[in-house]
Amino acid sequence: MTAGGFQSEVRVRFAETDAQGVAHHAAYLVWFEIARIDYLARFDGGYPGLRDQGLEATTTEVYVRYIRPARFDDRLAIRTRCSQVRGARFRFEYGVEREGESIAEGWTTHACVDAVSLRPTRVPAWLAEAITRAEEAAS
Amino acid sequence: MTAGGFQSEVRVRFAETDAQGVAHHAAYLVWFEIARIDYLARFDGGYPGLRDQGLEATTTEVYVRYIRPARFDDRLAIRTRCSQVRGARFRFEYGVEREGESIAEGWTTHACVDAVSLRPTRVPAWLAEAITRAEEAAS
Amino acid sequence: MTAGGFQSEVRVRFAETDAQGVAHHAAYLVWFEIARIDYLARFDGGYPGLRDQGLEATTTEVYVRYIRPARFDDRLAIRTRCSQVRGARFRFEYGVEREGESIAEGWTTHACVDAVSLRPTRVPAWLAEAITRAEEAAS
Amino acid sequence: MTAGGFQSEVRVRFAETDAQGVAHHAAYLVWFEIARIDYLARFDGGYPGLRDQGLEATTTEVYVRYIRPARFDDRLAIRTRCSQVRGARFRFEYGVEREGESIAEGWTTHACVDAVSLRPTRVPAWLAEAITRAEEAAS
Repeated sequence: MTAGGFQSEVRVRFAETDAQGVAHHAAYLVWFEIARIDYLARFDGGYPGLRDQGLEATTTEVYVRYIRPARFDDRLAIRTRCSQVRGARFRFEYGVEREGESIAEGWTTHACVDAVSLRPTRVPAWLAEAITRAEEAAS
Repeated sequence: MTAGGFQSEVRVRFAETDAQGVAHHAAYLVWFEIARIDYLARFDGGYPGLRDQGLEATTTEVYVRYIRPARFDDRLAIRTRCSQVRGARFRFEYGVEREGESIAEGWTTHACVDAVSLRPTRVPAWLAEAITRAEEAAS
Repeated sequence: MTAGGFQSEVRVRFAETDAQGVAHHAAYLVWFEIARIDYLARFDGGYPGLRDQGLEATTTEVYVRYIRPARFDDRLAIRTRCSQVRGARFRFEYGVEREGESIAEGWTTHACVDAVSLRPTRVPAWLAEAITRAEEAAS
Repeated sequence: MTAGGFQSEVRVRFAETDAQGVAHHAAYLVWFEIARIDYLARFDGGYPGLRDQGLEATTTEVYVRYIRPARFDDRLAIRTRCSQVRGARFRFEYGVEREGESIAEGWTTHACVDAVSLRPTRVPAWLAEAITRAEEAAS
């Protein structure tokens, strides 16, 4: 899987490595989050825009499969796509590559919630439509 | 799911919270790791013992489902079981609870590898057997 | 310096190590924070109590001197004292030890602020007095 | 203080924020490390080059003064200079700015050590000279 046409870049920080000499496996969730926020930033305010409307996105599930270790100072490309937006829920898929070689892949699911009540709330139509259009254009 | 009869405790650190006021979702992988190392520590040297034998355990997959947010200073119980040890691979399941209420659940898979060549290597028989006995006793 | 009579314990997490095989130097600030919150927890609600009164404590300065590396699974004792409470400011000193051997030492300064306006606010008298009494008893 | 003519950029990650809604104070040490590695990367192999020669740099002291909070998604400029290279020791100074406004400042000291014996070792002449030249050119 090489998820998605939208690409972000991260560089492995020394602080992200562990005593096995590789990037710690929890760092990948932080990189997915960076990729997801980058992805959303293209759409009319993105994640900060959601928050300004009194909405929050919470993470409901994560999955990562680690294929090859990433090392300090590696430049990694994260390819992201939003594979589903329905009601209050959305789902992202990610592929992590180093010079075209697959390092890891994964997906996350999220719920859009009211920032005060924390009740699930439909993803705003403007955002759902913008995402759908972008994904159609990329496929 | 309330995975496992073996229990560890973590307390949510302020540094683990995020601007949503809850524990960041990547922190759960760190807690699972603590629980897994605790779990293994009962067996004749545990994870440090593995490393002394020139073996390493790498993480090959992780999955987390977030049920309720955890907050700063919460005391969380992590219930862990090793649901499979076969060849070079093992799998752990986790349930995270706060005062008996389920906060999250998840699982991780691992490969036992030679620390130098990084080639997959059978989990040592002493460890596989000790885990099997412990899980039978707990069930 | 072996700062303070109040003692907390942390155990070095695998996720806190780095590719030099030792605890990453930023982890010490997280441990100081744990020690500080532990220290305050003895006083009538501690840090959560401060927050309930609409106050926050912000960190204004930190200093750490690293003496010996800490390694995965090390049990570290953090000895903490509050060396000053004056107006809106307070200062903590820390000594980190492993089996009686000094690993690091440091200090942090903080300001008590109104949680909404973020304006500096006197440390509440009940807390300043409780800290002063505790430090006198320890010295 | 606006330390240094060499500039790096970091963007505040959501995972770096805490329940006060601002970047956690330990994150600044990670940013300083990124800036320091960036700084050294200009010199003939930089930090990876040091490691290839069997040398490591360890952190011996850190100091940070926090001036204004940094928030999620802020783009921060880190201005770095190496203010001293002498024997086995070197010292860096940092200024963190957001749109020209000072957010924090600090310094760190380091020792160059043999990667195996961990004994202090002179900073290699090629690196000490390259740094001195670069700092003279910048001042």
